[in-house]
Amino acid sequence: MALIGVLGGMGPLATVDFMEKVVRLTRATRDQEHLPLLVASLPHIPDRSRAILDGGEDPLPAMLSGIDLLNRNEVGVIAIPCNAAHHWYAQLQARSAAPILHIGEACINAIQDSVQRVAILGTSGLIAAGFYQEALTARGITPVVPDEVTQARLDASVRAAKANDIDEATVQLSAALAILIAQGIRAGVMACTEIPLAARNLSTPTITLIDSTLELARATVAFAVARGWNSPSPVALDRI
Amino acid sequence: MALIGVLGGMGPLATVDFMEKVVRLTRATRDQEHLPLLVASLPHIPDRSRAILDGGEDPLPAMLSGIDLLNRNEVGVIAIPCNAAHHWYAQLQARSAAPILHIGEACINAIQDSVQRVAILGTSGLIAAGFYQEALTARGITPVVPDEVTQARLDASVRAAKANDIDEATVQLSAALAILIAQGIRAGVMACTEIPLAARNLSTPTITLIDSTLELARATVAFAVARGWNSPSPVALDRI
Repeated sequence: MALIGVLGGMGPLATVDFMEKVVRLTRATRDQEHLPLLVASLPHIPDRSRAILDGGEDPLPAMLSGIDLLNRNEVGVIAIPCNAAHHWYAQLQARSAAPILHIGEACINAIQDSVQRVAILGTSGLIAAGFYQEALTARGITPVVPDEVTQARLDASVRAAKANDIDEATVQLSAALAILIAQGIRAGVMACTEIPLAARNLSTPTITLIDSTLELARATVAFAVARGWNSPSPVALDRI
Repeated sequence: MALIGVLGGMGPLATVDFMEKVVRLTRATRDQEHLPLLVASLPHIPDRSRAILDGGEDPLPAMLSGIDLLNRNEVGVIAIPCNAAHHWYAQLQARSAAPILHIGEACINAIQDSVQRVAILGTSGLIAAGFYQEALTARGITPVVPDEVTQARLDASVRAAKANDIDEATVQLSAALAILIAQGIRAGVMACTEIPLAARNLSTPTITLIDSTLELARATVAFAVARGWNSPSPVALDRI
């Protein structure tokens, strides 16, 4: 048994959402059949989107401190429920003894083969980072980058969720989706972990939405269950 | 700045609920104004209620390992979102350099002075542990221990929540509350952190319910905000 490490707090409610998805995806009849987690929720990590966009404070040192903390405690794998953080994936993985699951990879693997065009629903910084565009193109899917007006709605949705205002986040996301639908878009990746929080209360069926938080949770549970980390062992408990 | 330590996984969804309440109780406009947490969600810790009731495996060694893990990472305070775990509060606090907030104390402090009788809604083990009865009596409030039939419903509600079946948990809790209401009860403490999960979807107004998870979250946020842990500092980030 090993602990699942989570580098979180980017943002805090998205980390809670990720944990809830991990718990609900785990088949269990009692506490002892669930998966053990060590979650470093470090919201003080500087803003990823701003660092990518306009030279805001570099978040890498604080993220590396979090990776070090998790590795000092001998986690067996790390999940980072923040898409923009994966702009620094290579540096984070280079520092980490534990493998880091890639949220974008998990998310793009979940897109059905029949899908030809996918809108990227994330922050401006995530769009500027460009790795979703590259990965979609590599799979033969055309990435659709929202226009300026739509992107402003998405950025506002993310900001509202980080400030605990999920109602406003939902209003902004709805407005963005209405524009995309009018533009003929039928599928989107929620490539920011705040977007699924905003999408929870969408009142009308919209477009097919792939949830990066859910897909990362699926990959995490599959990794851990394959290694039997949901099976308690007294020896392993002594080693925490 | 210090980290808030959480000894969790007892059960896992209750830990997620506790974290969500901490985040939502924190006044923040962006990630960086939220509180930093280190959460050890260790569901393999042996069942607390069974250990209290019938000599089931002792959970104390595994809980102490969790307390050690949190202290090795220099948390500044510890919250344990499991009521029955507080049967071992003295031993846990004796081992911990960081102060441990007491869930029962936080919960009972939240009861209004006008309340005279309060039902204890927890597991059979929590009832057998007796510390809620003592603390209520010390405050001049008459503790009401549910009868056998009602207690069986409460235990079933908790079991269902731990198995991710919140609908069934709600059905069982509703049945327990119907009996208590018929017996003239007007207030109850949800003295098991699974009960608030079951109470989320109660369809009818029932009795005044005091939520131990929420009260522990309030005490935790107050402790951390009073010490400025929601204010990022570059120096402190280096020390994680």
